Amino acid sequence: MEKETKRAGKVEIEWLPDKTDRMPIYRQIVHYVGTKISNGDWVVGDRLPSQRQLADLFHVNRSTINEAMDELKAMGLIEGNFGKGTQIINNTWSLLVSAKPPNWQSYIEAGIYKANFPTIQMINKLEFMEGITRLSTGELSPDLFPHDMMRKVFQRIPERTRSLNYLGPLGLPELRKVLSQYLRKHNIHVSPSCILIVSGSLQALQLISIGILHPRSTVFVEVPSYLKSLHVFESSGMRLEGVQMDDYGLMPWMLNKNRIKDDTALLYTIPTFHNPTGTVMTKARRKEVFEWCRKNRLPIIEDDAYRELWIDRQPPEPLKSMDHNGMVLYMGTISKSLAPGLRIGWLAGPESVMERLGDIKMQTDYGASSVSQWALAEWIESGLYEEHLQVLRGHLKERRNMVLSVLDSCYKGIASWNHPEGGFYIWLKLNKNISTDKLFQLALEEKLLINPGNVYDFSKNKNIRISYAYAESRALENGLRKLSELIRKLY
Amino acid sequence: MEKETKRAGKVEIEWLPDKTDRMPIYRQIVHYVGTKISNGDWVVGDRLPSQRQLADLFHVNRSTINEAMDELKAMGLIEGNFGKGTQIINNTWSLLVSAKPPNWQSYIEAGIYKANFPTIQMINKLEFMEGITRLSTGELSPDLFPHDMMRKVFQRIPERTRSLNYLGPLGLPELRKVLSQYLRKHNIHVSPSCILIVSGSLQALQLISIGILHPRSTVFVEVPSYLKSLHVFESSGMRLEGVQMDDYGLMPWMLNKNRIKDDTALLYTIPTFHNPTGTVMTKARRKEVFEWCRKNRLPIIEDDAYRELWIDRQPPEPLKSMDHNGMVLYMGTISKSLAPGLRIGWLAGPESVMERLGDIKMQTDYGASSVSQWALAEWIESGLYEEHLQVLRGHLKERRNMVLSVLDSCYKGIASWNHPEGGFYIWLKLNKNISTDKLFQLALEEKLLINPGNVYDFSKNKNIRISYAYAESRALENGLRKLSELIRKLY
Repeated sequence: MEKETKRAGKVEIEWLPDKTDRMPIYRQIVHYVGTKISNGDWVVGDRLPSQRQLADLFHVNRSTINEAMDELKAMGLIEGNFGKGTQIINNTWSLLVSAKPPNWQSYIEAGIYKANFPTIQMINKLEFMEGITRLSTGELSPDLFPHDMMRKVFQRIPERTRSLNYLGPLGLPELRKVLSQYLRKHNIHVSPSCILIVSGSLQALQLISIGILHPRSTVFVEVPSYLKSLHVFESSGMRLEGVQMDDYGLMPWMLNKNRIKDDTALLYTIPTFHNPTGTVMTKARRKEVFEWCRKNRLPIIEDDAYRELWIDRQPPEPLKSMDHNGMVLYMGTISKSLAPGLRIGWLAGPESVMERLGDIKMQTDYGASSVSQWALAEWIESGLYEEHLQVLRGHLKERRNMVLSVLDSCYKGIASWNHPEGGFYIWLKLNKNISTDKLFQLALEEKLLINPGNVYDFSKNKNIRISYAYAESRALENGLRKLSELIRKLY
Repeated sequence: MEKETKRAGKVEIEWLPDKTDRMPIYRQIVHYVGTKISNGDWVVGDRLPSQRQLADLFHVNRSTINEAMDELKAMGLIEGNFGKGTQIINNTWSLLVSAKPPNWQSYIEAGIYKANFPTIQMINKLEFMEGITRLSTGELSPDLFPHDMMRKVFQRIPERTRSLNYLGPLGLPELRKVLSQYLRKHNIHVSPSCILIVSGSLQALQLISIGILHPRSTVFVEVPSYLKSLHVFESSGMRLEGVQMDDYGLMPWMLNKNRIKDDTALLYTIPTFHNPTGTVMTKARRKEVFEWCRKNRLPIIEDDAYRELWIDRQPPEPLKSMDHNGMVLYMGTISKSLAPGLRIGWLAGPESVMERLGDIKMQTDYGASSVSQWALAEWIESGLYEEHLQVLRGHLKERRNMVLSVLDSCYKGIASWNHPEGGFYIWLKLNKNISTDKLFQLALEEKLLINPGNVYDFSKNKNIRISYAYAESRALENGLRKLSELIRKLY
């Protein structure tokens, strides 16, 4: 559609806007004129036809021309002048398009919150790559999603929900009542007013970080720890300090007492099916940990995300079940056991702390999705959640056994590993030091995605987190075999 | 059940645990022993019967006694000694219960995030009080909830959703596609990769605050502004600076240029059905504002939460529709027009900024509820959202007209007000200076809840935000009449 000749002083136009195009006509005109100028076809000082002439030339009405001219003026490319008509006064169209917008990069760099670790950012994106096999992903396979049960739950939601208005700071009262009842199953006795609904466990940590800690607080975590892969505390200035583990769980006597002072420290622990090592803290060790923290007045965040995912036997009761003095902030979720997409977790602890964190939640996102909250209440109350868990445990057992047998046949001599009794994870310890980053790259070339252990640890190490929960069984098996070959190659 | 006698040296027990009680038996024993000690019934040096004897006395098995004794030891009340049996060594039970827990108050006070304004905290709670009439609430009445349409939407979700796994950083791709298409209706042309799904508009602001600003950044806001009622920027150290408005919207030439430096400032504006004044920025003023900001390289956050709620005529197109250089971060939501309980909003802007904010969202809550995201995609695609909006506009018109006629009949001579063409709000300006806090209290005694204007303004003032959207029509009418009487009383 483009044909035109240029004459000094006054431009000539032999072009028509495309009325079938999705781009508004006035913007097509802006784009046309802008391109003419930036191409140097039209130069500073050139005059445009009058608005009436332009309307005729473009077969459009005056208001469209008006709009286009206004924008070109706003861009500083032309200037209207009653005496002289409209003139081109600038040729910096390309500059306007590329360089004049705000310098967002400098805004981004100024931002307070740390960017995610490059490896994690990469994993977050690669997970959605076509054809990739995710050997380390910490969630249930889509195959394990209880679709028919979910349908039943969704049918019930409209019956229970007269509206979906804003809720109070602690979350849906009906759900908090259901959870108060549900937690008794684990020997935790808390009233609904001591339960805060959050949009997943990670948000609970985020609220704790900005709600009850200050920038010089210390957060003790197991070595290795899932928490090390997050910036949730460090972005607000807190310091993570590692506590060594043995096969029975973290060793409280290894804690650096000097860092517990002025009521500023917390211990974060996953005592049950620990992420990433799969360790279950024994009953005796739980008592030791609890007692140590009580004596030293060190509050505990107990992350119990994996409790329901036991395979061989029920794990010992939570630390929270020993707590009569509000020592423990207890975190639960259905993200690992049912569906992360609901984005619902809960935090149980002293009422004053729950109120403080609820107040901040109101100030940052006005609460969690009511739809998700109603859905979870229905899942638990209907008994479908328990039913689902029983089925799920069977599937996880099969998957775990399959993976353990692949490890037995392909990884002997190159690695050692734990035999998890629940949860998702096998912590694969390589026998030799190799670059797990290099392994990550090699695996990626084979369309295998792994989470290198150094994401979770305090120093470079030679571990890989394997999850038997996510990948499709056949792909998981083949992927693990392939991975063993890559490791051998690097040895 | 309680009867016992005390003998020096050895305690005597004539009490039995209640096996029908919900409290676990071992804990009943702990509670019984602890109470005896704290009451002074049993004193330091007293010896308890042997564990075998206790098991017989309480009619329970040894492991229960063992558990109870372990806990009493952990509390430091008794000490086991193979030679001497079990002895009471401490009588600080009450101290243990009340004083020994962590000093949560000092944790709470140390927290980084500011507590909500006391008035807002109070409003957040009072809103759920039985029988209260909410004259200022910024959401749709439960009466206006499209229950039947919601049922249809929920029936469709399981068909669309094969699983509810974690999503990528920007949110559900299907919803971003739907929104990219939907925004064209408002002459906004952005690709799905420039849209970030958030858990409501407030979270968009929270992400902006920690993602692209630093503690000395300035955020310009209208005077008065909804933003003034939040700590979302101030909690991270940013400074709010007011910009005066007239009837055509904010006056950009009043902006303090000295504060726009080093790429650290932003302008936050609600050009359409402004909260709390109801003002609609004219088309001409929009151009002025946009042009002023472009020249001064001041990025704009355009909060367009109320756009779809026009009553008399469609408002001018968004500032974002003029934006070709990524000047504007555009915020949309269905919280005001459909249901806040879904907790879904969106942010449209330059890809690099959306990626940065999406990365932080992943680090703080792993994304918005997938259920809610699917629900919204279905609402829009099915055409039900548009259908709902048409019905809703009729209801809002009725409500607005009713409220305006009550104001005409009861508030003449004591106040002046705007005639909103959409949105929720009437900004009631009292003719005389009275304490709106006192009015708040008086209204509360009549079970009327109002949002005093000073919540939104930079200084004490004499305004009240009225919303015609929330309260049941009859209660709204009566409440407003009553309120006028209270105001007259205070004059």
